[in-house]
Amino acid sequence: MDYDQYFSVAVDALRRERRYRTFAEIERKADRFPRATWHSPGGPRDIVVWCSNDYLGMGCHPVVIEAMRESVSKRGAGAGGTRNISGNSHEIVQLERELADLHGKDAGLVFTSGYISNETGISTIVKLIPDCVVISDELNHNSMIEGVRRGGRQKAIFRHNDLAHLEELLQAAGDRPKLLVFESVYSMDGDIAPIAAICDLAERYGAMTYLDEVHAVGMYGPRGGGVAERDGVMHRVDVIEGTLGKAFGVVGGYLTGKRVVMDAVRSYAPGFIFTTALPPAVAAAATASIRHLKNSQAERDGQRAQVAKVKAALAAAGLPQMETPTHIIPLMVGDAKACKAASDVLLAEHGIYIQPINYPTVPRGTERLRITATPHHDDKLIAQLAEALNDVWSRLDLPRVNTTVAERPLRAMAGAAPIPLPIAGG
Amino acid sequence: MDYDQYFSVAVDALRRERRYRTFAEIERKADRFPRATWHSPGGPRDIVVWCSNDYLGMGCHPVVIEAMRESVSKRGAGAGGTRNISGNSHEIVQLERELADLHGKDAGLVFTSGYISNETGISTIVKLIPDCVVISDELNHNSMIEGVRRGGRQKAIFRHNDLAHLEELLQAAGDRPKLLVFESVYSMDGDIAPIAAICDLAERYGAMTYLDEVHAVGMYGPRGGGVAERDGVMHRVDVIEGTLGKAFGVVGGYLTGKRVVMDAVRSYAPGFIFTTALPPAVAAAATASIRHLKNSQAERDGQRAQVAKVKAALAAAGLPQMETPTHIIPLMVGDAKACKAASDVLLAEHGIYIQPINYPTVPRGTERLRITATPHHDDKLIAQLAEALNDVWSRLDLPRVNTTVAERPLRAMAGAAPIPLPIAGG
Repeated sequence: MDYDQYFSVAVDALRRERRYRTFAEIERKADRFPRATWHSPGGPRDIVVWCSNDYLGMGCHPVVIEAMRESVSKRGAGAGGTRNISGNSHEIVQLERELADLHGKDAGLVFTSGYISNETGISTIVKLIPDCVVISDELNHNSMIEGVRRGGRQKAIFRHNDLAHLEELLQAAGDRPKLLVFESVYSMDGDIAPIAAICDLAERYGAMTYLDEVHAVGMYGPRGGGVAERDGVMHRVDVIEGTLGKAFGVVGGYLTGKRVVMDAVRSYAPGFIFTTALPPAVAAAATASIRHLKNSQAERDGQRAQVAKVKAALAAAGLPQMETPTHIIPLMVGDAKACKAASDVLLAEHGIYIQPINYPTVPRGTERLRITATPHHDDKLIAQLAEALNDVWSRLDLPRVNTTVAERPLRAMAGAAPIPLPIAGG
Repeated sequence: MDYDQYFSVAVDALRRERRYRTFAEIERKADRFPRATWHSPGGPRDIVVWCSNDYLGMGCHPVVIEAMRESVSKRGAGAGGTRNISGNSHEIVQLERELADLHGKDAGLVFTSGYISNETGISTIVKLIPDCVVISDELNHNSMIEGVRRGGRQKAIFRHNDLAHLEELLQAAGDRPKLLVFESVYSMDGDIAPIAAICDLAERYGAMTYLDEVHAVGMYGPRGGGVAERDGVMHRVDVIEGTLGKAFGVVGGYLTGKRVVMDAVRSYAPGFIFTTALPPAVAAAATASIRHLKNSQAERDGQRAQVAKVKAALAAAGLPQMETPTHIIPLMVGDAKACKAASDVLLAEHGIYIQPINYPTVPRGTERLRITATPHHDDKLIAQLAEALNDVWSRLDLPRVNTTVAERPLRAMAGAAPIPLPIAGG
């Protein structure tokens, strides 16, 4: 039997729809972030990365790098086992305490990724609540959707950030137990959930709340606890999920919540039980990063300043950015082929790397370039970005916008100034 | 609504069944492996770890540690994004080439864990094959079971390593496409699948084959390609799955196979697409480990020698080990409470750490201590282990066995001698 045909057909379908993905091979430079080497088909080339989720450059911070190096030397490269069988390192226990403290919860639980923390976390929680209805925002991340699906309970999807629709669904669920699953910052649109109002509804209708803060931890709130911390509602959310792989700059995911909830997930979640623990060095690096961002505002201030400048520069050029209240800057293209072409020209001719975002990550017809500015994207890099985008938009004849709306972000940058931050040497 | 009750009930059920898990907090010592510090309730204590899956001690090998340290310095602590969005590091591309070469395949694909490689790999493969029947060994790992389940296809489970039963199921599936899913080394019983005979059947009945070698890679075959390499049948298996977190000493999982299959999984698997890539430093460390074990026999020879000595020592003491043809040495207890008690006394009084293995990792009534000897467990440590186990078996009045059968492993150690191996300094 010819099995290859099945896989060829699947890959060819993607090519026909022009959403076959080519991964750019990137060599990061810890001492020159966000600059990197692109291993292009024609050989290595210097580029600037404008689409990293290392939002604050903490992956290149000397405190994080040194913590990881020291731990590798002392503890070795890996954990050596699952959490239950010899892999429960001192470092991962410390990390879980740090995370519980960050979110003001009893306990934390670390997973190999944010993906698996959502998938096995949500599915395990709802399986432990008989007759539970899961009420879920329609734009929740794939990992949450998979978690809900695997939980096997009845689900109800509310329109994105729509409180009236959410209330309808909560009412409809009546006296049954309910898990309300949502995000704070939605990563592709860059908008923010009304967490306080959602908590009001959850309390009124007796729902347990599960909040994904992966695109917010480290960056929002006075200690980097996320949007819920910033809004003063962290204590009203039952379970807060986060990642160690974005603003904290390392890898891994986690849950925080009441001790009994974490203990139950720890004891029942297959994606937690049957997998090798993260290396002690990864845990040590993440702990160093979290501790640093609990106390330092420089990275958050610097990011906000540079994000505002990028938004202003794109607005001035009449480029069709989606207005967002966050650090995420989506630049709408609306066509898979054009989006890929824009990205290709930016990389090949301007040395600017912004990966095209196509279906299934975003809906068809909303293909975009998703720009992320860190505190390390200085004013000169921002000017180069705006110039390059302007050139690409003209050459490919991509749609521009009325700049009146888009100019709004300019006001956000009043008084903000870039702050020099340390970058580790080689 | 009181949600805590649901989680309390779940945790209490485990306590009642005496399978509530307490994780021992372990601080590894890279320069003294397999010695470690146990953070006991009464304070830090020196122990010897006898249950690590860092089977060859590669997590503490200077080549691996130095590769990881160097990469952290140069590339930073994390990948900064998914594989598609800025996280496709030069290091992870190199690692995938190394893995493809290791297994003699076109291409490799790296995942955040072995768990997720099985779960999202198997489910994606079977979803891409319309009308596929999945034929699966009954003792397959939880991650494979979850992958089969999520694939949503009809499944047929054959009795463990039972070729006659497997053939029945293959016949029964008729002309439909079939994915045959199995392991080489089964981790809790330590036995080995008849891979060549399984391939014979797969070829006769036109099944695609998927082999999990997580407990074999690095340790079996002249280059550490696993049991399929050792048996000369690697080329007959369609997809080989492995881990970077056991004998290779780091963390992460992978698939290898034909380019078109890897490309399809890369393009369709949610657990691959929507997750942050492993850090470049993890990839660099894994590559260093794989390359070392492709060329060096010292670790494999040393492990075989020390495993044979442990088996002989246990046999001499009349301890009820399950005879295995592998490096895994299960010591049967058969009762959850007694198994936990044995483990507790070993740790508290002898400084020997062997985690009890209870349900659901093994069936009820087959609770066991699972001992893993590395090349670094020297003869003195082995003697101490045997003495401690003997003491615990006497004190807890645990069942012993007729030693006739158990003595067999003695023959396997003829001519084997321990080889001193490098361990990294601090």
